[in-house]
Amino acid sequence: MTTDTYLANGNEVQLFERAYRRRIPVMLTGPTGCGKTRLVEHMGLLLGRPVITISCHDDLTSSDLVGRFMVAGGDVRWTDGPLTKAVKAGAICYLDEVVEARHDSLAILHSLTDHRRSLYLDRAGEVVTAPETFMLVCSYNPAYRSSLKELKPSFRQRFATLAMDYLPPDREAAVIVAETGIALSVAERLVACADALRNADQAFHFEPPSTRALVSAAQLVADGANEIEAAEACILAPLTTDGGIHDGLREVAAGVFVTPNQAH
Amino acid sequence: MTTDTYLANGNEVQLFERAYRRRIPVMLTGPTGCGKTRLVEHMGLLLGRPVITISCHDDLTSSDLVGRFMVAGGDVRWTDGPLTKAVKAGAICYLDEVVEARHDSLAILHSLTDHRRSLYLDRAGEVVTAPETFMLVCSYNPAYRSSLKELKPSFRQRFATLAMDYLPPDREAAVIVAETGIALSVAERLVACADALRNADQAFHFEPPSTRALVSAAQLVADGANEIEAAEACILAPLTTDGGIHDGLREVAAGVFVTPNQAH
Amino acid sequence: MTTDTYLANGNEVQLFERAYRRRIPVMLTGPTGCGKTRLVEHMGLLLGRPVITISCHDDLTSSDLVGRFMVAGGDVRWTDGPLTKAVKAGAICYLDEVVEARHDSLAILHSLTDHRRSLYLDRAGEVVTAPETFMLVCSYNPAYRSSLKELKPSFRQRFATLAMDYLPPDREAAVIVAETGIALSVAERLVACADALRNADQAFHFEPPSTRALVSAAQLVADGANEIEAAEACILAPLTTDGGIHDGLREVAAGVFVTPNQAH
Amino acid sequence: MTTDTYLANGNEVQLFERAYRRRIPVMLTGPTGCGKTRLVEHMGLLLGRPVITISCHDDLTSSDLVGRFMVAGGDVRWTDGPLTKAVKAGAICYLDEVVEARHDSLAILHSLTDHRRSLYLDRAGEVVTAPETFMLVCSYNPAYRSSLKELKPSFRQRFATLAMDYLPPDREAAVIVAETGIALSVAERLVACADALRNADQAFHFEPPSTRALVSAAQLVADGANEIEAAEACILAPLTTDGGIHDGLREVAAGVFVTPNQAH
Amino acid sequence: MTTDTYLANGNEVQLFERAYRRRIPVMLTGPTGCGKTRLVEHMGLLLGRPVITISCHDDLTSSDLVGRFMVAGGDVRWTDGPLTKAVKAGAICYLDEVVEARHDSLAILHSLTDHRRSLYLDRAGEVVTAPETFMLVCSYNPAYRSSLKELKPSFRQRFATLAMDYLPPDREAAVIVAETGIALSVAERLVACADALRNADQAFHFEPPSTRALVSAAQLVADGANEIEAAEACILAPLTTDGGIHDGLREVAAGVFVTPNQAH
Amino acid sequence: MTTDTYLANGNEVQLFERAYRRRIPVMLTGPTGCGKTRLVEHMGLLLGRPVITISCHDDLTSSDLVGRFMVAGGDVRWTDGPLTKAVKAGAICYLDEVVEARHDSLAILHSLTDHRRSLYLDRAGEVVTAPETFMLVCSYNPAYRSSLKELKPSFRQRFATLAMDYLPPDREAAVIVAETGIALSVAERLVACADALRNADQAFHFEPPSTRALVSAAQLVADGANEIEAAEACILAPLTTDGGIHDGLREVAAGVFVTPNQAH
Repeated sequence: MTTDTYLANGNEVQLFERAYRRRIPVMLTGPTGCGKTRLVEHMGLLLGRPVITISCHDDLTSSDLVGRFMVAGGDVRWTDGPLTKAVKAGAICYLDEVVEARHDSLAILHSLTDHRRSLYLDRAGEVVTAPETFMLVCSYNPAYRSSLKELKPSFRQRFATLAMDYLPPDREAAVIVAETGIALSVAERLVACADALRNADQAFHFEPPSTRALVSAAQLVADGANEIEAAEACILAPLTTDGGIHDGLREVAAGVFVTPNQAH
Repeated sequence: MTTDTYLANGNEVQLFERAYRRRIPVMLTGPTGCGKTRLVEHMGLLLGRPVITISCHDDLTSSDLVGRFMVAGGDVRWTDGPLTKAVKAGAICYLDEVVEARHDSLAILHSLTDHRRSLYLDRAGEVVTAPETFMLVCSYNPAYRSSLKELKPSFRQRFATLAMDYLPPDREAAVIVAETGIALSVAERLVACADALRNADQAFHFEPPSTRALVSAAQLVADGANEIEAAEACILAPLTTDGGIHDGLREVAAGVFVTPNQAH
Repeated sequence: MTTDTYLANGNEVQLFERAYRRRIPVMLTGPTGCGKTRLVEHMGLLLGRPVITISCHDDLTSSDLVGRFMVAGGDVRWTDGPLTKAVKAGAICYLDEVVEARHDSLAILHSLTDHRRSLYLDRAGEVVTAPETFMLVCSYNPAYRSSLKELKPSFRQRFATLAMDYLPPDREAAVIVAETGIALSVAERLVACADALRNADQAFHFEPPSTRALVSAAQLVADGANEIEAAEACILAPLTTDGGIHDGLREVAAGVFVTPNQAH
Repeated sequence: MTTDTYLANGNEVQLFERAYRRRIPVMLTGPTGCGKTRLVEHMGLLLGRPVITISCHDDLTSSDLVGRFMVAGGDVRWTDGPLTKAVKAGAICYLDEVVEARHDSLAILHSLTDHRRSLYLDRAGEVVTAPETFMLVCSYNPAYRSSLKELKPSFRQRFATLAMDYLPPDREAAVIVAETGIALSVAERLVACADALRNADQAFHFEPPSTRALVSAAQLVADGANEIEAAEACILAPLTTDGGIHDGLREVAAGVFVTPNQAH
Repeated sequence: MTTDTYLANGNEVQLFERAYRRRIPVMLTGPTGCGKTRLVEHMGLLLGRPVITISCHDDLTSSDLVGRFMVAGGDVRWTDGPLTKAVKAGAICYLDEVVEARHDSLAILHSLTDHRRSLYLDRAGEVVTAPETFMLVCSYNPAYRSSLKELKPSFRQRFATLAMDYLPPDREAAVIVAETGIALSVAERLVACADALRNADQAFHFEPPSTRALVSAAQLVADGANEIEAAEACILAPLTTDGGIHDGLREVAAGVFVTPNQAH
Repeated sequence: MTTDTYLANGNEVQLFERAYRRRIPVMLTGPTGCGKTRLVEHMGLLLGRPVITISCHDDLTSSDLVGRFMVAGGDVRWTDGPLTKAVKAGAICYLDEVVEARHDSLAILHSLTDHRRSLYLDRAGEVVTAPETFMLVCSYNPAYRSSLKELKPSFRQRFATLAMDYLPPDREAAVIVAETGIALSVAERLVACADALRNADQAFHFEPPSTRALVSAAQLVADGANEIEAAEACILAPLTTDGGIHDGLREVAAGVFVTPNQAH
């Protein structure tokens, strides 16, 4: 539905392509909504490989990844999971928010990420060797630093890590205009509001607003909302549930927006 | 059974409609009983879309949301869960008290709440893309601030947040009269009692009385109870199990009600 | 086996009946053995409705409440749970010690306790709307104040709360005589012993003796035991396992009973 | 194999019989090995009722108690558990070490221990009312005072509690002689050793030696072991795994036994 | 494969035999690798009874011990577990490292270890009484003193406890020579190294080296390794993962071994 | 795909072979990526035995290791797990990262690692004795010192422990050249960077870079990336998610690399 509008922020496209050619797994890091998923989709189009996405969560078992025996018509048949399908198809397998996965489920990836490039299906009694075009990509947001949910260093070292960040203001405004059709001046004010909040992040310790949140605000403006109520709903309100911090952030954002009737 | 008597408190109806048109998921926040569920039902009627409600709790698995394989007549057949049904029907899917859900169950919503607007049914091997009329709405009460049960910021940013609150006193009294048929003066005294308690909330740290509780009290009065025993049963008694605080609250409420025989 | 001998302690019968007529769920609170279960049975007879009792415990799943699919003769058939049966029969459904239930199981009650008065059977794909005669009654003992097991305030506000307490001494003695046939003077000494212990509750922090325990002691006396050994077995011994407190309580109780050969 | 050699220590046999006639459940308390299980077996013979014993542990589900559906020859049939069998047979049902049970499993006993005397088999959809001869007996050792494993006061109040203790020295020696055939003088020295340790219990906080342990030591002596090695193996060694306390206990026990060649 | 080379360290063989004749269960305690398993195997040969060994771990259910219903060819048949098999065969049942077992699984042993000597198979509805030749033996290492994993005192008192320890140096060296064929002087140096470390145990708090570890080191020497690398691999390296303690232990061991070319 | 290029670092190949001949299980310890897995594969080729690898994780049950009953065509058939297969085939069974396994799953290994060399399949009712060529090898990284995940000393003592470490710089550079074909000077700079970071390990407490990570960086350089961006992606970025430490490490690494256009 959305056309491929990925705007590179650094050398991430080049390095990704090199890792692909050299069959090195890639780890994408960076804040929420900085474009990690979009980069993977973009690289899939660029490299001509399908992308199979797996949203990680802490109930994801290794069976969910590799497959399981299932009963059908009285018979018990092995059914490949999305990871096994991706390996067999030589696809790009994308594990989104990999840090959320149960770490024991990740052990299944070890033999895929070293010189073996193979998947051991212990229960099916099969070993699947990845074709050259198979690539494993993971992503996570290092800003969540919970001791329970750290990826093991030995796991991280299996990947080439591409550290991503927000787009620079002018590119971010351009993305917003391209996706919503609002005036550039409105987009620039939304970006200025977001940047003010991102800079305040150190003081308040919240997750800063993503480009996706700015696009949502711009959508509401495009539909007739005024800039302040749109920014309140999509940028400020989701940041925190602490009343005091919320007031502080509102002050940070204040001054960016003009009065409602000046919008557009 | 009840006709649609939603009374808007601010710009929530307009913003909800804009989010619907722009396909932005909506998060409703606010205290218990301030009308979040009623707003969703009202918007369903207004937008002409069915509302599919899912009460969240921490045993809700992603299979409960999207569906599972079930055995019927010897065969194993996939059965859609309420979320999948809502996506296919282009309905409004309402996740009530979403903060209660296991957060790993919520990961299934990620691809529905960004540009993909799709549901990945890994186990069924199917991808369902949402029609334009599908809308995801969640609600929670930010007053419960347990560290175990915070929604992740990256999750909250996927939604336009509409912050709701209690109705102003005159509108709340009007709703009570409309739903129970008691005299306006009684309704006003019940609202005055509730407001006194809501203002005392800072000092006592309890969940303030909801409009729903006032309606229950009014029902008992309509049935012949005196105002004081009705307020005791429906407004004061449920607030706390701590005897000392209970006495404090009773004092706060005192003076609002006249002697029993003066009611009506 | 026992005839209906409920003796009201206040306005609880009247308020219960009003809540029934207005279709407001009722929450009974009060110490163990003060008559909550008896009130519900009494009201069932008075209102002419069957009572379906569910003893809550923390392994009670929502499937235990609403029903589940079961295999019978090769087929998989939905089987209603006791809550669903109660809703369909328009019965009084009594959840005893509701605070013991897993709180996620209680979420299923939300739609039954607001204006919807409906039960959503997600797994069966059915919505059951309660007939006018259906009533939900819960009970718990607020004296257990564990942080793990507090009912959520938003849950408590869905009910009209009837706070119950022990019977006054003369009525309690009358109940004991009616149920066991012992002499009134013995019943009065047992009640005096219990009241001495109930007043000592503040100092020793134990669960005070219930009317049920007094009836048991009276039964032993009626069978030939002397009052002191009966009171020791049924009233004092169950109160605490702490030797020091036990000695303190025995002193509190001393002086109430005459020498064994003076009993009857 | 063993004949019924129960020696009463107080009024426990009389009170047990009275509770049986009045249909009051009985709770036996006392230290390990003081004869609780023997009393129940003795009363079963005396009252002419079979005893069905259930050893409680924290994996005992309510299904283990009441029964479950089981598949047999393609059919699904309900199979009564030992509690249901005991109720139907009008037997004495003995829950040994009831404090070890999961407390949610005990909720099933509530309706059996008040005026209802009925077992609600929710899953089988059946209500079983106990015949007059059915009796519920539980036991536990109050010396284990873990906060996780306290019986709820409201549960304890459903029972007449018979507090048991070790036999007085002369009776205990008589039991040892009767069960092993060793000389009375040896039995007296073993009891003296145990009593020295039981009195030291306050200082060292260990579980004091049971009559059963003395009988085991006497068996070894009867087989040719000397008194000191028998007492070491059966009385001292099991008391503690802490070297320092063990040496202290050995001193407490020293002086009781004469030199090995003086035994018998 | 190995012949029976058990060397007694004290009166353990005699006491074990007496307990067997008197049908008293036996508990073996002592450090890892001091010969507990070998004693049981030795006694099996001596008494002419088969030994059925069960390695305990905290996932061992009581069903794993006593048996379960299993589906075979459409039928559901009860299958005895190893404990039930041992009881029926009148074998010696050896529960190795019993402290590792889930304590609720151990409750099944209660009726086997008192005067009843019976196994209650609740699910199969069967009671199996042990023949005279059945004997229950358990073992554990009391050096692991975790509060989570203490055996209950009432459980320990059901057994005659035989406290075992390492062999004296000359016997241990003789065992090593007998099992590996190396020169006595080498075996003595390995034992001297182990004893130096065992004496250092108080200071460093590690699990001291077992006879088994010495035999492994001797095997490597017999295969051509020098004494120092063999002792490093089999005696020192497994003791600790803490670099500082490891260096301390190496110093303790130093001086025992001569230069490599002096070995044999 | 990769030919066998194992370069020994000490006496590990010789000791491994001796342990194999003497049937002593081997434990490999050392930092991530120092060559433990490669040594096992190398020894498999050298000794002419197949290697069966099991990646340990804390969801690995003993059934996953030894096998389970599975339904196939209506029948229930036992299916050997990888450990049982390895025992029967007389293969080298390699448990990678054994410290990650649930410790109760490891209990199944006890009888395989002492004089019995047998696997007890309790559920299948079978005992499998290992042929002479069977060897058990485990590995773990002692740098992870979590109290939850320590191997028990008694378990470690069942193995001869071979402590491994990184290759010396010249050998490590040679491996990098052999695997990627980059110039020796580039490989030497990558090794120098890694060694600078490994020496800084004491100060910063992170998992130092592995040889595998250096090979990945070399692959990117071979594909056209400059040394600095390759080292950033594969060596520095995976080390830590802490911004401050990351800056410190970058300084440590600085000075090693020349300007980009000087590479090759």
